Amino acid sequence: MGIKIVETALRDAHQSLMATRLRTRDMIPILEKMDKVGYYALEAWGGATFDVCIRYLNEDPWERLKKIRENLKKTKIQMLLRGQNLVGYKHYPDDIVEKFIEKAYENGVDIFRIFDALNDIRNMEHAIKVAKEQGAHVQGTICYTISPYHTIDKYVEFAKKLEDLGCDSIAIKDMAGLISPKDTYKLVKSLKEETDLLVNLHCHCTSGMAPISYYVACEAGVDILDTAISPLSWGASQPPTESIAAALKNTKYDPKLNMELLSEIKKYFEKIRDKYKKFIDPIAERIDTDVLKYQIPGGMLSNLVAQLKEQNMLDKFEEVLKEVPKVRKDMGYPPLVTPTSQIVGTQAVMNIVGGERYKLVSNEVKEYFRGFYGRPPAPVNPKVKKKVIGNEKPIDCRPADLLEPQYEKYKKDGEKMGIIKKEEDVLTFALYPSIAPRFLRGELKEEPLEPPEEEKTPKKELS
Amino acid sequence: MGIKIVETALRDAHQSLMATRLRTRDMIPILEKMDKVGYYALEAWGGATFDVCIRYLNEDPWERLKKIRENLKKTKIQMLLRGQNLVGYKHYPDDIVEKFIEKAYENGVDIFRIFDALNDIRNMEHAIKVAKEQGAHVQGTICYTISPYHTIDKYVEFAKKLEDLGCDSIAIKDMAGLISPKDTYKLVKSLKEETDLLVNLHCHCTSGMAPISYYVACEAGVDILDTAISPLSWGASQPPTESIAAALKNTKYDPKLNMELLSEIKKYFEKIRDKYKKFIDPIAERIDTDVLKYQIPGGMLSNLVAQLKEQNMLDKFEEVLKEVPKVRKDMGYPPLVTPTSQIVGTQAVMNIVGGERYKLVSNEVKEYFRGFYGRPPAPVNPKVKKKVIGNEKPIDCRPADLLEPQYEKYKKDGEKMGIIKKEEDVLTFALYPSIAPRFLRGELKEEPLEPPEEEKTPKKELS
Ligand SMILES: [Co+2]
Ligand SMILES: [Co+2]
Repeated sequence: MGIKIVETALRDAHQSLMATRLRTRDMIPILEKMDKVGYYALEAWGGATFDVCIRYLNEDPWERLKKIRENLKKTKIQMLLRGQNLVGYKHYPDDIVEKFIEKAYENGVDIFRIFDALNDIRNMEHAIKVAKEQGAHVQGTICYTISPYHTIDKYVEFAKKLEDLGCDSIAIKDMAGLISPKDTYKLVKSLKEETDLLVNLHCHCTSGMAPISYYVACEAGVDILDTAISPLSWGASQPPTESIAAALKNTKYDPKLNMELLSEIKKYFEKIRDKYKKFIDPIAERIDTDVLKYQIPGGMLSNLVAQLKEQNMLDKFEEVLKEVPKVRKDMGYPPLVTPTSQIVGTQAVMNIVGGERYKLVSNEVKEYFRGFYGRPPAPVNPKVKKKVIGNEKPIDCRPADLLEPQYEKYKKDGEKMGIIKKEEDVLTFALYPSIAPRFLRGELKEEPLEPPEEEKTPKKELS
Repeated sequence: MGIKIVETALRDAHQSLMATRLRTRDMIPILEKMDKVGYYALEAWGGATFDVCIRYLNEDPWERLKKIRENLKKTKIQMLLRGQNLVGYKHYPDDIVEKFIEKAYENGVDIFRIFDALNDIRNMEHAIKVAKEQGAHVQGTICYTISPYHTIDKYVEFAKKLEDLGCDSIAIKDMAGLISPKDTYKLVKSLKEETDLLVNLHCHCTSGMAPISYYVACEAGVDILDTAISPLSWGASQPPTESIAAALKNTKYDPKLNMELLSEIKKYFEKIRDKYKKFIDPIAERIDTDVLKYQIPGGMLSNLVAQLKEQNMLDKFEEVLKEVPKVRKDMGYPPLVTPTSQIVGTQAVMNIVGGERYKLVSNEVKEYFRGFYGRPPAPVNPKVKKKVIGNEKPIDCRPADLLEPQYEKYKKDGEKMGIIKKEEDVLTFALYPSIAPRFLRGELKEEPLEPPEEEKTPKKELS
């Protein structure tokens, strides 16, 4: 049985390299060819694409999904769902989660890759249940990180719980390109031995080890690999599709992709890359094994630079880099992925810029210590906790348990405001209440493809 | 025993990505750090660097070698030597070969990597003998290519002959990035089993498979890998040093390089890369698995484009691409590397532009069919041979056997011209008789680092 390949060009690759700016009109013309390559799936929705569609592209993300679906005859569509955060940055109530997944499935998503930044299964349970009920393929996700508390055994235990919840497959989500070939082998092998799940390895090339880890994963029995067509590959993105396909050719892992079509698709995306080149951050294109030291993925790095620039303190960059792992430790070693990457990064900046650690504390960090993001992977630093929330007792329940249903409220409010034309609009409104009304009224404009100089490095999300 | 790493930043990497333009003054400041990394060797001389030093940089290549040597305390210097072609494009008489290798060794070369574009051992014998006599480490080279005539067995047989000649190690020179992980395993394994040589894998990332092939080579028992510090890696260059070092960390293959120093060296070369960015051909940076179809390495591709542009026939590009493998077949499947890459490429252009195959034939192709480059790997197409050289009988001896000694003649002539200040100048004169006099008289100027628009894609050499 050959390896299955998921092409990320339409979601993760452009999110990682081009600030998620790819337009739907630049996706449609190539879908017919992509549909014939032999991909297992196209990752084409979720992550930051929803937000960016509305905020910068004046595009309805639901329309994008529908159009992609219409242009694919046989290839599955995969979306990245941030568990109870859906495609936003905070927990939503269960009724919103239900409606969102229902509509996503209805409009064309076949595979839901569901993760939680803290690997807190409680934040994934409801999404998994709803997606299963729809009949979708549900992929549970391990956010991969390295810490004294993260062991192969714990990852496997987590995967087993996801299997118990009915997941069809498990993704190893290595968002910063940290996983070594050696650890890849161990983790994939253990997952294959101790669960019946399909195993999907998802790496970014940040440290440059990903192509090797992919190969070793094959040797360990991996089922699915995520790759990006070469003009959108490498650096902060995935390994190149053509290279992985070629490297596995005539082996038992051969994904049997159509190389001729891949070559044509590559040429198409070379033009796309040129068209969007203003959005490509040079940092995102580079390989940097320093990521192994600080565990700071590419997108987070450019956010840190931007924050320091704003305060005219770019000379503190090295100090902030060194502060990040300390903050992460204080917070119980969360994997760095949306939203924890932003939370940890911003706090590291505040710790250095403020001159004293945790003198200034962001609201998100307070919420984190209060338990509102879920359970930290390891015990937090009690001194820091005390400094941040005093003697307040963190919540012990699933954060979303504290949330009231909201769908009907947004529906009523939205209808009153005259911004609801279809059910999906209620969800758009519920997820982005501040910007959605202007978007839904058609008051927003598409950001020009050639942005003014100072906007060249747009804020990036990490998932 | 860990893997040994050869860093190519100072030779192959800048030759492959920046048209060989790196100045000595941009190498010296980083040598102290490079010396402490734990590299086995720095590839720092030979290939196209000699030619480019004189032709474009107004630099004495011998001085470069001496200065690099002076700044390294423990790391070996490796050079790439084109067998009887030395660092030129034609066969030189034995006395020139002797003097050249003597002086290269004397000025600091520790390891001579010796190859012949046709894998014709007769063109390597004399260089190997002389380098051995000097006491150098001699590395015989397999120019790797794929054809119905090139089998693992033949490569191994060739390696055994090189071992018999006294070579200390063998390089698999995969100049176009063609070698698959599967074939890498077989070839390295066979070489390790059937010879006592150290085995060195040298790949370019053109097809994107090289990092995987490197890893598989480790599994098969490879001893030495060639890598390039990340800002000068990937694409037409080698896999990134830091990524390979990180990927092998804590395994039995661990090269135990100093990662902190690598990070500093990386930062240095990021600046170098920016400084030389005008010389970076976008094609050279890209991954392209089409190379597996046409076997045309990156540097050759940009030469073809340049030749077609000159004749205003860029619309024939696809046709030329398809013609290259045909010409190669007609010529008995030579590996495409300097000088055969240029010879095959130019003839492919002539075949398409001329409207009839072999109506126009370059002098080099005539010489090739006459046997003056050595023995083709496979029988040539007899019809084409007839069209090119009629009924003329090709020579059967080693081409250099037909050459008279020339060193004394160049010495006398050079001295008469007043251009000889040291013995090495005689060699420079003998190798580049047309340009050397002006160079040695100090009449040449260094090409500016910011070239005029039309020179942005300088001619590239492939070795
Ligand atoms: Co990702
Ligand atoms: Co090379």
